[in-house]
Amino acid sequence: MLFKNIAILDETLEYHASCCVGVKGDTIDYIGQDAPQDADAYGEVFDGTGKLLMAAHYNAHTHAPMTLLRGFAENLPLQAWLEQKCWPFEAKMTPEDNYWATLLSCAEMARYGTVSFSDMYYHTAERAKAVEEAGMKANLCTSPIAFEPKPIQEYETVFDEMVFGAESVHGAANGRLKFDMCIHAEYTNNDITAKSVFDTAKRYSLPVHVHVAETKSETDECRKRHDGKSPVQWLESLGAMDVGMIAAHCVYVDDEDISILARNGATVVHNPASNMKLSSGFAPVAKMLEAGVNVALGTDGMASNNNHDMFQDMYLMAMLPKGNELDPTLVTPKQAITAATRAGALAQGREDCGLVKEGFKADLAVLDVTGVSWCPVNDMLTNVVYAGHGSDVVLTMCDGAVLYRDGAWPTIDVGRVKFEVAERTVRIQSELSQGE
Amino acid sequence: MLFKNIAILDETLEYHASCCVGVKGDTIDYIGQDAPQDADAYGEVFDGTGKLLMAAHYNAHTHAPMTLLRGFAENLPLQAWLEQKCWPFEAKMTPEDNYWATLLSCAEMARYGTVSFSDMYYHTAERAKAVEEAGMKANLCTSPIAFEPKPIQEYETVFDEMVFGAESVHGAANGRLKFDMCIHAEYTNNDITAKSVFDTAKRYSLPVHVHVAETKSETDECRKRHDGKSPVQWLESLGAMDVGMIAAHCVYVDDEDISILARNGATVVHNPASNMKLSSGFAPVAKMLEAGVNVALGTDGMASNNNHDMFQDMYLMAMLPKGNELDPTLVTPKQAITAATRAGALAQGREDCGLVKEGFKADLAVLDVTGVSWCPVNDMLTNVVYAGHGSDVVLTMCDGAVLYRDGAWPTIDVGRVKFEVAERTVRIQSELSQGE
Repeated sequence: MLFKNIAILDETLEYHASCCVGVKGDTIDYIGQDAPQDADAYGEVFDGTGKLLMAAHYNAHTHAPMTLLRGFAENLPLQAWLEQKCWPFEAKMTPEDNYWATLLSCAEMARYGTVSFSDMYYHTAERAKAVEEAGMKANLCTSPIAFEPKPIQEYETVFDEMVFGAESVHGAANGRLKFDMCIHAEYTNNDITAKSVFDTAKRYSLPVHVHVAETKSETDECRKRHDGKSPVQWLESLGAMDVGMIAAHCVYVDDEDISILARNGATVVHNPASNMKLSSGFAPVAKMLEAGVNVALGTDGMASNNNHDMFQDMYLMAMLPKGNELDPTLVTPKQAITAATRAGALAQGREDCGLVKEGFKADLAVLDVTGVSWCPVNDMLTNVVYAGHGSDVVLTMCDGAVLYRDGAWPTIDVGRVKFEVAERTVRIQSELSQGE
Repeated sequence: MLFKNIAILDETLEYHASCCVGVKGDTIDYIGQDAPQDADAYGEVFDGTGKLLMAAHYNAHTHAPMTLLRGFAENLPLQAWLEQKCWPFEAKMTPEDNYWATLLSCAEMARYGTVSFSDMYYHTAERAKAVEEAGMKANLCTSPIAFEPKPIQEYETVFDEMVFGAESVHGAANGRLKFDMCIHAEYTNNDITAKSVFDTAKRYSLPVHVHVAETKSETDECRKRHDGKSPVQWLESLGAMDVGMIAAHCVYVDDEDISILARNGATVVHNPASNMKLSSGFAPVAKMLEAGVNVALGTDGMASNNNHDMFQDMYLMAMLPKGNELDPTLVTPKQAITAATRAGALAQGREDCGLVKEGFKADLAVLDVTGVSWCPVNDMLTNVVYAGHGSDVVLTMCDGAVLYRDGAWPTIDVGRVKFEVAERTVRIQSELSQGE
């Protein structure tokens, strides 16, 4: 595809009002002011008048099958939310429910310009099938909750899924699928199991995805359990930082934690909507950026957000520190866009993704910027973060293939998916009310 | 128009999956499960399959002409934002600039389901012209900034505009236009001028719109200037509460202030986006709701938001207290929707507006709820506040007339408006850079 007369945010997020971008195969082959000499070789010409082309989003922390729970557990304290609502609901979810719910997540993400996600949940085979069919990218992982102090190998079901992920999922679908190692969190694990997971990660050279310091009580109790060690310190002490760390949340991290994360090249996945909605608090995201931590963005699960529009989380990432720390200079539009794009790609080990750059994968979002909220353009980056909407996305492309365009999803039968998700939700609610 | 097979949020915000709503003239004439007997008398039949009909939004604090400044002044401390950017820009704005910029605000609000706004700015005649042409409603006011201790009558230009507003604008356009009295804020006024404005308000029986306790320094300094009185106490002491008070912001109000506001039937206009972006802080909105204050919602000006999508502010109103006060039960979807609808209508003295109720004005927003973010419907109110987007609005109706429908604005030439706003922004920027 050859995008002509299109505005772009280039690899340094500089705005150019009119460019030409050529995609060949899965790659951004050409960027220039004029059309390339071999313009015919790029196939369809896309008239970019009134459009902005930017890197697609990488959603770095999700629980994709939880779309089934959207709006199901609301306005409740965390424990009641988990124990009375989420866990009983999730216990009723079949592998096939996971497949359909993941497809809905894929459709929703593609609709708002996201091409890839890092997903912590169960039933890896069904999730992988959904992602592959949707034509998206994902780093899947499965999360052991392990209270008995025994190696992960003795938690057979989970370990089998990890081995399946590392050996059969990782690298599949032309590399669009990857697999990460994982423990759910410090408070749902013990030293022996956790250490054995990190050792397994080293054996496979895979990074580790963990919920870290999401709540104050989690962090305080971790210090009590582990000789004063914070969750970050505990993870480091067990070798979790040696392979690559994707630390979701990090709401309660102090200067020492931040320094450990920065020193180890960890990614912190900021989930501003979820952290607010569940009353976890506001993560010190400006401080982490300042320290050089790779801060990516996540939507988290649909029981705590409740949509997959990364533009909304980008907005919140830029807005919340200004309000919470009473400093309007904190977090620039450029930092927020970087978190949603390049930082997420790096968290997923996708070095050739997340920038509008020749030779990089053609993972692109095209926005209609003629809407009333985009006028005037005093500063395009500011409009992207504060004024525009995810719904302004008119085309989402992953590895050169169109995932979403003008209300249609070429790879997903969205009508069927919505029907299946609605029916399955009703079934689960009915099972729950009958106390089955 | 007769809306058939349409889901609605009724006057108590109960959700009904399939109803019939009939509009005659400017009024909601019929609501029922079945079609009315005289169905033919309602004109066009609207197939409501997959749609949700709810009360339109009332935006209770705006500076509509500031659309020209969208994205112009960013990531700056408040004083630099005002003194170095906003004020010099605004000094270059002509009456005609105000007219076009107000029309853009009208188009943007209508696009996201808003039919009315309470607007504090200058050039009332031009703003009134824009609102009347757009077919919207507005409570306009003009805001004296008065440091000399003399009655408002001696500030001739402003006073003339107030008299013009009270006598010629108030009640115009079939009552769609109203006029409120106003002082800009405590810190930009003095006792004598303020008192004379409130006396004028009493003479005309018009409420008073004021910026109140927006920042901590404003509030602290007010106490120093006025024998320990907070801005709310100062306003009460001068009689500002006697006629009806629209108190914008109220970020720094204590229990006594809240009790004064509640006792006097004041409206507090919560502006969550603006308060965050300018680092004012988080208003104690849950506490004000608890105390029975009429809490409405505002987008504020486009230099501090940067869009007129009230769905975003409704989302923030429900989310921020959960994160800031670490209590996920604070602010329910119902409270957020009420703030955006009925509370705003009441703040504008529009008793017959803001509810989907027979006999009320037909101020309606219709949303397409078949989008991927709306599935499944475990709880429709939750989906409206947390999952949906203002861009899901497909029809906005004001007094029975369509303001926006499926990408088109029957009353506004949006192409021309965007052209004018863009050109005028360029002109002002050019004047500023030449130091004219």
